[in-house]
Amino acid sequence: MTEDRNRARFSYDGLERTIHEKARLGLLTSLVSHPKGLSFVDLKRLCDLTDGNLSRHIKVLQDAGLVTVEKGYENNRPHTHCTITAEGQKQFFDYLAVLEKIVKDATQDAARPAPATPPKPVV
Amino acid sequence: MTEDRNRARFSYDGLERTIHEKARLGLLTSLVSHPKGLSFVDLKRLCDLTDGNLSRHIKVLQDAGLVTVEKGYENNRPHTHCTITAEGQKQFFDYLAVLEKIVKDATQDAARPAPATPPKPVV
Repeated sequence: MTEDRNRARFSYDGLERTIHEKARLGLLTSLVSHPKGLSFVDLKRLCDLTDGNLSRHIKVLQDAGLVTVEKGYENNRPHTHCTITAEGQKQFFDYLAVLEKIVKDATQDAARPAPATPPKPVV
Repeated sequence: MTEDRNRARFSYDGLERTIHEKARLGLLTSLVSHPKGLSFVDLKRLCDLTDGNLSRHIKVLQDAGLVTVEKGYENNRPHTHCTITAEGQKQFFDYLAVLEKIVKDATQDAARPAPATPPKPVV
């Protein structure tokens, strides 16, 4: 019974790979905290990415329907603006809930006092 | 000045790839919450991994000095026991601090009320 309940307890299936990748996690965090969106120039600076990496990761997020990209001009110079979609916000907050669960799982159990007797060595 | 302060604000360099990978994140969370360690059989079940994936990821964690593996026998059957190291605990808690920062960054700013005026379209 206990065994069944604990099955896959630490598998964290909600850590969807599109979001979990380090650079994309930074991009989505910056976009979710800037509801009006951010320019490519700002994203590059905030997430410390090269042009190539930024374009590649934004394309993955765009293909997954998590962000939209508008290309235009500002002061006669090409300007690209990126915004998180409603679906992107939803999926990102679902993902954040898994991160919170990991932090909780790790800290609540790890905070338990060590057992009085040392662990039995495996022979 | 503000621009410099915000440079790389969302780059989250502390998301060390050895730990950030989804399966290894589950393995370390389960091990940090079981200070006496866990058997391979338990880890397989708790993290929902195949034998091959479990061995591969444990090897990565072992090579990085984050876990130790003891092979022995229990009731005349091969038994493998895995424990997080002190260094593993330290690195994992450093990593968790970055996860907590992401959750904070995403939720505190996203919770701001939307601006009264709609965002200016990019033309």
